[in-house]
Amino acid sequence: MKKIFFGMPGNEEMAEQICKILDGEMAEFTLRQFPDEETYLRITSPLEGRLCVIVCSLHHPDNKIIPLYYLSKLCRELKASKLILIAPYLSYMRQDIQFHPGEAVTSEYFAQLVSQWVDELITIDPHLHRKHDMAELYSIPCMVLHAAPVIAEWIIKNIEKPVLIGPDMESEQWVSEVAKNSNSPFTILMKQRIDDRNVIVKLPHVEKYMEHTPVLIDDIISTARTMKETVIQLKNAGMKPPVVIGVHAIFAGNSFEDLQLAGVEGVVTCNTIKHDSNKIDLIQLIVSALN
Amino acid sequence: MKKIFFGMPGNEEMAEQICKILDGEMAEFTLRQFPDEETYLRITSPLEGRLCVIVCSLHHPDNKIIPLYYLSKLCRELKASKLILIAPYLSYMRQDIQFHPGEAVTSEYFAQLVSQWVDELITIDPHLHRKHDMAELYSIPCMVLHAAPVIAEWIIKNIEKPVLIGPDMESEQWVSEVAKNSNSPFTILMKQRIDDRNVIVKLPHVEKYMEHTPVLIDDIISTARTMKETVIQLKNAGMKPPVVIGVHAIFAGNSFEDLQLAGVEGVVTCNTIKHDSNKIDLIQLIVSALN
Repeated sequence: MKKIFFGMPGNEEMAEQICKILDGEMAEFTLRQFPDEETYLRITSPLEGRLCVIVCSLHHPDNKIIPLYYLSKLCRELKASKLILIAPYLSYMRQDIQFHPGEAVTSEYFAQLVSQWVDELITIDPHLHRKHDMAELYSIPCMVLHAAPVIAEWIIKNIEKPVLIGPDMESEQWVSEVAKNSNSPFTILMKQRIDDRNVIVKLPHVEKYMEHTPVLIDDIISTARTMKETVIQLKNAGMKPPVVIGVHAIFAGNSFEDLQLAGVEGVVTCNTIKHDSNKIDLIQLIVSALN
Repeated sequence: MKKIFFGMPGNEEMAEQICKILDGEMAEFTLRQFPDEETYLRITSPLEGRLCVIVCSLHHPDNKIIPLYYLSKLCRELKASKLILIAPYLSYMRQDIQFHPGEAVTSEYFAQLVSQWVDELITIDPHLHRKHDMAELYSIPCMVLHAAPVIAEWIIKNIEKPVLIGPDMESEQWVSEVAKNSNSPFTILMKQRIDDRNVIVKLPHVEKYMEHTPVLIDDIISTARTMKETVIQLKNAGMKPPVVIGVHAIFAGNSFEDLQLAGVEGVVTCNTIKHDSNKIDLIQLIVSALN
């Protein structure tokens, strides 16, 4: 029987693309808000005994949770055999320990909710940092996909003589993987976080890469402060304008515009979160995982 | 030991007022959003063995749910003995059956979530319609408070020769109660709903109340379409400009301004949802319930 696909608001196009390649069926359903901002949901496709795939990227997560919960409950009620959630971007991966006493470890709380609602999770480059395995958070099977090979392919095709640069130690896991796949040199900068919005970046000795095109790579671009700071320091060091690559294009506030004005060659992201900067398509990666 | 109070965003003032009257203690906690719109929560008050009271009115509910969930989880983790949720306005009470096949019965789904998170719920005039008892939805003890006596008191003090009018059959339960308490005559209009935003209202014979001040009463004022339509029809029938009273001031979009322009004597609501029209104070009602 064909898999049946649900594209949550903003994810309709991706759901349709995946569905088409896999010869699936798009679910017929209505998801809307009443004037009092309560959510209304109705599914008219028959689901009994069927495998449901819900595509829902989880940036700005809080008000996506009730619709996702209602959808999962209703799919169960309509006797779907299995629910797979594709969350190309997975939220609440950063507060994975108590940095101070009395803090909510929201990574765990969030994972517990999602684990109650669906049977399986597919995500791309979740921000695993202090936790090293999704099983430390999620009690359901999680398939973690990596954008690195696809980003490497894009770099090989589009950038001559690149040097890959990770803005901090956390980014090493992504940058080193892309470097290996694209056979490029790489280096990691050191950063010191002052608060949510401010960081200090320390440059290593990059003099030997003056003829290269710097390619800054990180998993999440949110405030883009680190990236902007790094761009300015590379410029001060006399390097060429860098290309900035992010897997997940959160871009809080005006950060995308700010980053573009900082003197970059370009800003390029994967399509885990729909954004003007999306140039690296991960649909085939997701399709392979579902197959 | 003193009860400890949490005022969720927008509910701080009410929580403080209740806390003060009951000689409780306000919890020290931080609830904020990261730049990527994920919620951060930290509680610094000791909670072990203590009774926690969370005040959170649930209008525009969807993005209030994650903070409420995190707070309840963290209170448990910090070993609170009991969690009471005061939701002066309780959401998701209207979709309490399937009107069409395949619809999510969100009243039940929502109640299941809340019932998992807190031990007890206190609310004011929940929109019980086809369900007659909160126990049909919620698996935790629910205390239902009624604004009618306080509204009746306000009418006695402020309106000469009132005739109470309910805009539809559903409103009869609230209007008849207020009428009894204020010793006023009442009548119920008939309405026919076309869709979410449009209704037709049919006037009964109100000729005998031409010298009275019409007082329109309903539990929830959301789009205010019914109210506005009724106001216009009362005016056409030659009645005096009515006073409009609602328990819960949702007022979607510009509906408050629209209603004021429709030719009313005044718009008055209870303070279950913070709004400029709040004139009827239910703090004492809540305090009595907690005592």
